[in-house]
Amino acid sequence: MATSTERDAMEHALLLARMHGVAGPNPRVGCVLLTPDGTRLAEGYHRGAGTPHAEAHALARAADAGVDVTGATAVVTLEPCNHTGRTGPCAEALRDAGVARVVVAQRDPNPVAAGGAATLEAAGIEVEVGVLADDAAALNRAWTFAVTRGRPFVTWKFAATLDGRSAAADGTSRWISSAAARRDTHALRGECDVMLVGTGTVLVDDPRLTVRDADDEPLAAQPLRAVMGLRDLPEGARVLDDEAPSLHLRTRDPHEALATLAAREARHVFLEGGPTLAAAFLGAGLVDEVVVYVAPMLLGAGRAAVADLGITTIAGALHLDVVDASTVGDGPEANVRLVLRPRTTPTTPTSDTDGGDA
Amino acid sequence: MATSTERDAMEHALLLARMHGVAGPNPRVGCVLLTPDGTRLAEGYHRGAGTPHAEAHALARAADAGVDVTGATAVVTLEPCNHTGRTGPCAEALRDAGVARVVVAQRDPNPVAAGGAATLEAAGIEVEVGVLADDAAALNRAWTFAVTRGRPFVTWKFAATLDGRSAAADGTSRWISSAAARRDTHALRGECDVMLVGTGTVLVDDPRLTVRDADDEPLAAQPLRAVMGLRDLPEGARVLDDEAPSLHLRTRDPHEALATLAAREARHVFLEGGPTLAAAFLGAGLVDEVVVYVAPMLLGAGRAAVADLGITTIAGALHLDVVDASTVGDGPEANVRLVLRPRTTPTTPTSDTDGGDA
Ligand SMILES: NC(=O)c1ccc[n+]([C@@H]2O[C@H](COP(=O)([O-])OP(=O)(O)OC[C@H]3O[C@@H](n4cnc5c(N)ncnc54)[C@H](OP(=O)(O)O)[C@@H]3O)[C@@H](O)[C@H]2O)c1
Ligand SMILES: NC(=O)c1ccc[n+]([C@@H]2O[C@H](COP(=O)([O-])OP(=O)(O)OC[C@H]3O[C@@H](n4cnc5c(N)ncnc54)[C@H](OP(=O)(O)O)[C@@H]3O)[C@@H](O)[C@H]2O)c1
Repeated sequence: MATSTERDAMEHALLLARMHGVAGPNPRVGCVLLTPDGTRLAEGYHRGAGTPHAEAHALARAADAGVDVTGATAVVTLEPCNHTGRTGPCAEALRDAGVARVVVAQRDPNPVAAGGAATLEAAGIEVEVGVLADDAAALNRAWTFAVTRGRPFVTWKFAATLDGRSAAADGTSRWISSAAARRDTHALRGECDVMLVGTGTVLVDDPRLTVRDADDEPLAAQPLRAVMGLRDLPEGARVLDDEAPSLHLRTRDPHEALATLAAREARHVFLEGGPTLAAAFLGAGLVDEVVVYVAPMLLGAGRAAVADLGITTIAGALHLDVVDASTVGDGPEANVRLVLRPRTTPTTPTSDTDGGDA
Repeated sequence: MATSTERDAMEHALLLARMHGVAGPNPRVGCVLLTPDGTRLAEGYHRGAGTPHAEAHALARAADAGVDVTGATAVVTLEPCNHTGRTGPCAEALRDAGVARVVVAQRDPNPVAAGGAATLEAAGIEVEVGVLADDAAALNRAWTFAVTRGRPFVTWKFAATLDGRSAAADGTSRWISSAAARRDTHALRGECDVMLVGTGTVLVDDPRLTVRDADDEPLAAQPLRAVMGLRDLPEGARVLDDEAPSLHLRTRDPHEALATLAAREARHVFLEGGPTLAAAFLGAGLVDEVVVYVAPMLLGAGRAAVADLGITTIAGALHLDVVDASTVGDGPEANVRLVLRPRTTPTTPTSDTDGGDA
């Protein structure tokens, strides 16, 4: 059983992981080293591929501070890795440093890296796995999905009016989403490592697809900008500028596109449209989460936010489950943000009867 | 200054009003009689037109119990009425009963009935107005609107999929809203005194338009069912059955329809469609509140939930403000309920730029 001090340390390690971790091939991980009586000796975190793992970071900081970690307890949000990748195996580093006990939140779901707990136990180190495991899994939700399923997690975002329009009859659409909703979108973009749109959106909208701050300045770390479709991209398209890396996926097959992205270690794709590409991903069952920004306005006509999905009757509707409904922004800036997941359980039949929804 | 005991009594009076009040021509009112030192002597509430006012009810109950109310304080959610309507003026009743102090939440906005406070003060009774005034105004929101503006408050409800559809391509729509959302709709219907639809909805859907409980049984008190439009209603239409009163408004003019309903002392119209009638009310600026049940499903095609409003460009969009976004029902029953109000303040211009919503 983990002590309450160890649980507190795990909370802190999760916070470190959340604050310092970045979207990308590697998970967000935090680590706290404790004396057997619970005094904190050092802490570490992982800042993305190519930087030290959280355990190595904590051990290095302890060494820098001249702190002896022999007999210490390592509290770490993810099972220490067992393989030599860009860095050496953390399980061995903890063992070599003389750590006596390791408390883990989430078991490593990555078959390549797993086995750290066994290595530690074989070395006579006490290992406890599962402390705040749900919080840790939530923190690395997309990453966990990607390493276990072999393809990136796909979040599809779209914006629509209350009546499901994405542009007025004359094609104008600026702005349907409020500035607050657009800022919120940038925060979500920053959680992902790939922005994905179809060639149609690039040709019509020429978006930048970068992650920007409140002053519209691009952040230092930028996700990959991927454009999918057979047509050439126009020279000078903003998506090809040097603000962020770009990739043209010359395919119309969502499976192939995700396989290409998976081979580049992409974990979380933010699919921003347009309607045609989104319909293709929905049709292929490759949308894992839907985020809808509903602008509180009515148009009564204009382009539909969601393209034809080949559904002709209500029984064929594509059902989702509501994960969250909340307001983003205040006053006239307030938009509604809905987060949904494709439904896995069948719809329950009901016995209500009436002559219609009215 | 009202004492904290008086404020507590006002909270209780508001609760009585909410619990026992009914939608209809009269407001929901509660009353608590206190001794000068704060002991509760009796309480009363109004149960709708034709029944005693809250003050009269409390005085009658005190008399029944043989309790002397001389020198008492009457805590009442609405300014005691000053006119002889279906019952005598409450201001005089309180005076004649020997009440020494009257604490009021909301001043009577109804010009016909107002003046009770002045009558009481002229009789040497101490009157304090405005205790929990906002709560009282919220309780009788539609009624207050109706008596001050001379027409009923109009809530327009519609149901739509995430992509703004109200039926699939083949016309099927049962069920877009979940059973939980339909139950919630019945609760909202119960807050209103008129259900309103167009002849189109009656001809297509043949709805009952009654307020029903979880077992689909009609409640004892039913709002008026009004159908608007020039065509005859089919004999045997369910809206004409004897489960509730019905009225055919043979007009296409929303102003005329509301005037007819106002003349019948209607206070709160629940406009349930269809799209044509809703568009007419929106166009006339006669929608005061919008309730949208968003079903978490996608259709990609099918009938639009909102009909053409004559808006051709984004600058002409009909803006609303979000009052509430919440989830109704659990699991696969969960629908999103949005409550909105037509925007009164102009939209703030923003300086964000991008190549489109993506
Ligand atoms: N409401 C919103 O949130 C939102 C978001 C983004 C865009 N938009 C709007 O959407 C409009 C563009 O619409 P769109 O549908 O043309 O954009 P799109 O979905 O970005 O691009 C469609 C193109 O993607 C390519 N493609 C890739 N995979 C495909 C597949 N499996 N099936 C079919 N085509 C595939 C095709 O081009 P190739 O011929 O090159 O293969 C196709 O023409 C713009 O006006 C933009 O403003 C709205
Ligand atoms: N999604 C939802 O929440 C919802 C709710 C209700 C209904 N519906 C659907 O809506 C469909 C019916 O659509 P609808 O548009 O025909 O229904 P509607 O709006 O109920 O009725 C339209 C009719 O109302 C009359 N009318 C009254 N005032 C009018 C005005 N100012 N302007 C124009 N017409 C006026 C006209 O008939 P006269 O010729 O008789 O004057 C008109 O044809 C049904 O299929 C129903 O299922 C959906």
